[in-house]
Amino acid sequence: MKNFTWWNPTIVIFGKGTIPQIASQLAAVGAKSALLVYGGQAIFKNGVYTQVSEALEKKGIAFPELGGVRPNPTIDKVREGVARLKASPADAVVPIGGGSVFDTAKAIAAGAFYDKDPWELFEGKGTNLERALPLFGVLTVSATASEVNNISVVSNPEKESKTSFTNPLIYPRVSIIDPSVQTSLTEAQTVNGGIDIMAHALERLFDGAEGVGLVDAQGYALVKTMMELIPQLRQNPENYEARAQYAWAACQAHNGSLSCGRGERGDFSSHKLGHTLSLLFGVAHGASLAVMMPAWARYVCQDNPTPFARFAEAVFGVEDDDEEEMAIEGIERLEDFFHSVGAPTSLRGLKVAEDDIERAAKNAAAFSPFGVVKALSAEDILEIYKLAY
Amino acid sequence: MKNFTWWNPTIVIFGKGTIPQIASQLAAVGAKSALLVYGGQAIFKNGVYTQVSEALEKKGIAFPELGGVRPNPTIDKVREGVARLKASPADAVVPIGGGSVFDTAKAIAAGAFYDKDPWELFEGKGTNLERALPLFGVLTVSATASEVNNISVVSNPEKESKTSFTNPLIYPRVSIIDPSVQTSLTEAQTVNGGIDIMAHALERLFDGAEGVGLVDAQGYALVKTMMELIPQLRQNPENYEARAQYAWAACQAHNGSLSCGRGERGDFSSHKLGHTLSLLFGVAHGASLAVMMPAWARYVCQDNPTPFARFAEAVFGVEDDDEEEMAIEGIERLEDFFHSVGAPTSLRGLKVAEDDIERAAKNAAAFSPFGVVKALSAEDILEIYKLAY
Repeated sequence: MKNFTWWNPTIVIFGKGTIPQIASQLAAVGAKSALLVYGGQAIFKNGVYTQVSEALEKKGIAFPELGGVRPNPTIDKVREGVARLKASPADAVVPIGGGSVFDTAKAIAAGAFYDKDPWELFEGKGTNLERALPLFGVLTVSATASEVNNISVVSNPEKESKTSFTNPLIYPRVSIIDPSVQTSLTEAQTVNGGIDIMAHALERLFDGAEGVGLVDAQGYALVKTMMELIPQLRQNPENYEARAQYAWAACQAHNGSLSCGRGERGDFSSHKLGHTLSLLFGVAHGASLAVMMPAWARYVCQDNPTPFARFAEAVFGVEDDDEEEMAIEGIERLEDFFHSVGAPTSLRGLKVAEDDIERAAKNAAAFSPFGVVKALSAEDILEIYKLAY
Repeated sequence: MKNFTWWNPTIVIFGKGTIPQIASQLAAVGAKSALLVYGGQAIFKNGVYTQVSEALEKKGIAFPELGGVRPNPTIDKVREGVARLKASPADAVVPIGGGSVFDTAKAIAAGAFYDKDPWELFEGKGTNLERALPLFGVLTVSATASEVNNISVVSNPEKESKTSFTNPLIYPRVSIIDPSVQTSLTEAQTVNGGIDIMAHALERLFDGAEGVGLVDAQGYALVKTMMELIPQLRQNPENYEARAQYAWAACQAHNGSLSCGRGERGDFSSHKLGHTLSLLFGVAHGASLAVMMPAWARYVCQDNPTPFARFAEAVFGVEDDDEEEMAIEGIERLEDFFHSVGAPTSLRGLKVAEDDIERAAKNAAAFSPFGVVKALSAEDILEIYKLAY
């Protein structure tokens, strides 16, 4: 194991009927007002807004509101939130929604104490940031694990850039996760979210490092569990037990614990390649991963089949003397699984035009070289998009 | 999954050469003095004391010392530490050692702000406790996970009682774990500690609950990993990779994560039955578990074979139509494993006299009925000790 520091201060309040606790948690730190941040109509339909607003009213906590956060959230909404808080301060920020809402709220919470344009935080300029407003979240869509980590991913369409801001100040103080409100998610949301969760584990397991027995075993256990849960939820979206394990798996996959002892802390090339597809063509995040992860894996496993062969054995029980054969079989079976749950497995399936491949490659290459198993050049990136077509 | 709250605020600094960071961590919170708490000669022999004291001296942090904590620590040492702090306050408490030292230091840190005898904390009387001194630990023996939890277990020989005090105030602020200093542990320490680690996971997996897919899978992964690591370390005590995974497994097994989603949060009957053996006959904690866990499991699986059968399948690949047969085979194979690594598997092997069985049963029965799979009466307890003989 490589040296590491483990710290995750978020309090997770998990289970049925837990949402009203948002008010007592805010009151416990003396908050008198909280900026609610949310997306569209979902939280009004599934009753979550009512649960939160009634609880806050009872405790006498004021709650100005900022709605309209979209999937693949943009910096505009962050700027809007920051401007609101600078004009009219609040004691806390309360995201109510999924990863996009949490990511936006985190950037607002930090931007409130940053004296320049908050996009600079995503450009790595906010290293002197000393505080952020505390975040008290209510999660309604499990996938990104934004509810338990210190990462915010936001797009800047003008700059054709989708990137992340990471800072210990933006760990949510409290995240409330009531899996029962997730039964109203669509099948596509459930599948895409599930693939995102798997990818967070796999991108660590595939990092080309030597492997970290215990931590790998926990990652494989998570991937195998997700491969049971996604089909169960397609069959019965109201299966609470499966919703709950899915929600907890989402947290475990990307709260940092699967990075412990890995020097490289994961190879997130698939995420980077997918971000471009979301940014340019509006592809759902999980769907982008279902396409880009197998293509990326096929490309880089020529250089380093070991982590893929290890995965094939641990998850699918593949046994073979030839490591490359094992690796390929593991990747194929992963792709078969994505296919079996109705996820797209090619750029064509995502309705990306062949003519757009070069544009995508050029966009993603802005960050190149990136990658741990293999450092990807602009040429490599183009090849991977072609493979994915 | 049952509702739960997950929170673990301890910062773990893990890896080779990390011990001197104790000083910068103390300095970061403005500590000018810290009471060092330790056991016998080990930390002087393995260089840990020198590493800590030199680092503290460089930062100008004063460090009064309280040595002489023994395995299965007693309340006397806690009282001594509390008296020291009341006479001459310090800003922090720094345990340097294993679970006994951490447990003692935790009770001292809390006792410093408790106005009566600190044993009362173990009797459940300190519910109004509002603060404790911050704990900054340096771990030298992995097993109990005291470095990452809010539990202190201490004995009171006068009252023939060994019991625990649990409070969120006694989570260590920081725990530094350098696995390389554990290469000097004896084989018995490594085996006993390893069994303690396994028991922390198993006592949750055996709690008779319905099972929590993902959390169970993570527990089984941990148990299987430990069954590889213990033999590896018997063969080569200096295997750093195995020491490191062992140390991290210890944290994972008892930091609370394996309780998430379990209503009962584990059945710790084996620990309770073992505590009596440590208290009355000075049996090493891990050795007591190697004997009591299989005996307890055999006894209670007559009433509820399900969790034991699930374990047999997940860990040993046992398949059988008969759940009871599976359960028994799983327990036998666990016992075989304990035997294979040189652990005692009977009270006779622990040199407990047959005449003492009734005394042990009477002592343990002071807490009865306890247990989740089966609530153990005084008669049950006697039967289990007899089975263990």
